[in-house]
Amino acid sequence: MVSVSPLAPKGGFPDIPVIDGVAFATVEAGVRYSGRADVMLAQLCAGTTIAGVFTKSATRAAPVLDCQAKLGAATDGGAAIIVNSGNANAFTGKNGQEAVASITEAVARMLDVPQDRVYSSSTGVIGEALAHERITAKLAVLKDGLSANRIADAADAIRTTDTFSKGASAQLETDSGVINIAGIAKGSGMIAPDMATMLVYIFTDAKIAQPLLQDMLSALADKTFNCITVDSDTSTSDTLLLAATGTSSAAEVTEVHGPFYGALHSVMRDLAHQVVKDGEGATKFVEVRITGAETDADAHKIGMSIANSPLVKTAVAGEDPNWGRVVMAVGKSGAKADRDLLSIRFGDVVVAEKGWVSPDYSEDAAAKHMKGDELLIAVDLGIGKGAATVWTCDLTHGYIEINADYRS
Amino acid sequence: MVSVSPLAPKGGFPDIPVIDGVAFATVEAGVRYSGRADVMLAQLCAGTTIAGVFTKSATRAAPVLDCQAKLGAATDGGAAIIVNSGNANAFTGKNGQEAVASITEAVARMLDVPQDRVYSSSTGVIGEALAHERITAKLAVLKDGLSANRIADAADAIRTTDTFSKGASAQLETDSGVINIAGIAKGSGMIAPDMATMLVYIFTDAKIAQPLLQDMLSALADKTFNCITVDSDTSTSDTLLLAATGTSSAAEVTEVHGPFYGALHSVMRDLAHQVVKDGEGATKFVEVRITGAETDADAHKIGMSIANSPLVKTAVAGEDPNWGRVVMAVGKSGAKADRDLLSIRFGDVVVAEKGWVSPDYSEDAAAKHMKGDELLIAVDLGIGKGAATVWTCDLTHGYIEINADYRS
Repeated sequence: MVSVSPLAPKGGFPDIPVIDGVAFATVEAGVRYSGRADVMLAQLCAGTTIAGVFTKSATRAAPVLDCQAKLGAATDGGAAIIVNSGNANAFTGKNGQEAVASITEAVARMLDVPQDRVYSSSTGVIGEALAHERITAKLAVLKDGLSANRIADAADAIRTTDTFSKGASAQLETDSGVINIAGIAKGSGMIAPDMATMLVYIFTDAKIAQPLLQDMLSALADKTFNCITVDSDTSTSDTLLLAATGTSSAAEVTEVHGPFYGALHSVMRDLAHQVVKDGEGATKFVEVRITGAETDADAHKIGMSIANSPLVKTAVAGEDPNWGRVVMAVGKSGAKADRDLLSIRFGDVVVAEKGWVSPDYSEDAAAKHMKGDELLIAVDLGIGKGAATVWTCDLTHGYIEINADYRS
Repeated sequence: MVSVSPLAPKGGFPDIPVIDGVAFATVEAGVRYSGRADVMLAQLCAGTTIAGVFTKSATRAAPVLDCQAKLGAATDGGAAIIVNSGNANAFTGKNGQEAVASITEAVARMLDVPQDRVYSSSTGVIGEALAHERITAKLAVLKDGLSANRIADAADAIRTTDTFSKGASAQLETDSGVINIAGIAKGSGMIAPDMATMLVYIFTDAKIAQPLLQDMLSALADKTFNCITVDSDTSTSDTLLLAATGTSSAAEVTEVHGPFYGALHSVMRDLAHQVVKDGEGATKFVEVRITGAETDADAHKIGMSIANSPLVKTAVAGEDPNWGRVVMAVGKSGAKADRDLLSIRFGDVVVAEKGWVSPDYSEDAAAKHMKGDELLIAVDLGIGKGAATVWTCDLTHGYIEINADYRS
């Protein structure tokens, strides 16, 4: 098993700007792991607006249900986010709800913020009781450690099978001042479509009303985290939270599709790609680009069918430009397709055109593309204007090793 | 890589009764493989009725489209089925249709049967032109070799990555005489739900009208081949054909849900199980039994979500009674579920009840069950009366080895 994914960003964890109004702390609480920090706390100033997107799983975990119920809370008080790794507090019945209530109540008291402004997440093993008293016992230490500069530690504390910490940021110059965006994420397995995927926390000093913040986050989740897949399995705990402190001197953001939307999009896409690049056992990052489908929804369906196909993913692992398996995945997707209009490219190499192998096809050129770290599979349906891009990784022995042994 | 699946039937290929009116022959035509038979021919007597179920893939192969068009043909003439392995004749455009026409026309002429009664299938690599002249060149040899006793050779000739030949049979005593049913199948990878899976040929001497034969086959495909999955990937070539020669002295079968339906069901279920037991890299056969769902359709959806989950399948490979992953797969299925009503069993071991781990749960007992070759995962939703049973295998290093190297 590799210690760090070969696809990890070369420079390590990025430099991320401080977000005024946000402070982080981490601690080793021994929830399940030992010898490493496993709880992170983020304190948010009064007036911070918070938007969230969560797993649609029917068996979602207690902290997810609690977060969803709290999104509508008044924003005048301060707020907090507390996250533990090692135990997902999922499928733990009434006990799970009590653990969430105990933790969020203690955090609210410690930081003097309303309890309905304390968001919690848990990630790790499913079905075991969360030792919440180990977390609440460390709250005083967390409070003492709060610092605006500790976002890298926070990204580190929320990891489970992740092989590297994931962070991304953007700075936006406006006429009235600078807006900063900073985000962290964790996720490596149980990564699948149609959800806000895994744990993702994004912070900005922009001033922006909660309904607009929520609209942007939901729209961009569909273009980023809902377009990635590692293994087609969907977590019970997926949580994406975006907190806007309003501490920037820049004027309030009031338009949906303005520069802030673009900057937020780039941060979310960057984090989503990092999750794929840390996919369990991954050695290749694959962009699947679909054009010419009947609708955008059909294009997404075809993209995900390719990106989730074990036969496509093992061919990528074997550096085999096996376009027959791409055809198979298009065919099984359930979306409209006409075999005799299909075209397929691997990188710049045209493999198939109008339903059969291209007369110019060079197996050598295609095989050369497959040897890279970052691959492109492009499919044109030749039917309409529907388009979508999704991202995935290969399926290797590493995935089997991690998941035939690890209890998650 | 194993030479023969550890789950293969212990006694080898079964004894299968001769079906009066059916003769088989095989030959080495060198379509792609060498040193083995790769074409099989079955000749069917005049009056034989034929029913079929085929892949729903949007990129289905030329022979599949040809078979579908022929199902309505008049039954007075003789008939034939010709199958090659090594090349699927899929995604081969107009060239593919011409190859099918050439082969079926030559078989019709050789055996003096109507061309619209000659069914063909091809299985193997996708996207390469089928060397149909290598097949037609061997038709005289095939004709000379025709024998009622060669069904085992036929099962052998249609294999690709299969590690054993698959056959099953049933005999039904009736007041007016005995009815025999004999079937063969191939399939090991690209095995997925919602289709007639892989290549399956079943023969019976029952007398039965084509519309009734088709109704029975379609209904039973939904209970057998459409309830198995190896890797969630769906072939472009899946074909299931059932031929009834009417040569038995038994009275004509006229009721749908009578003894013949039951006997046919047992043959189809047996063949479907053998396909799973030869799943690429499989070391465990898993029955997933769902009860208490809102509808049968919901139960099937949940069963397939569990049976296709890479995390469940790797846990099975690791002999880990990881019921948290079963909960995850229930949650992501899209079917109605209430976390707090769920119960889960591994074999006879009650793991979880009413949304949390059972007070009587013994990890040792569950782990012991997981060490077996044939496992049961039973989930009760506690909501309604919907039920379904599906079958799958584990996901192992063997699957990666086969598919990161093999061009299929």
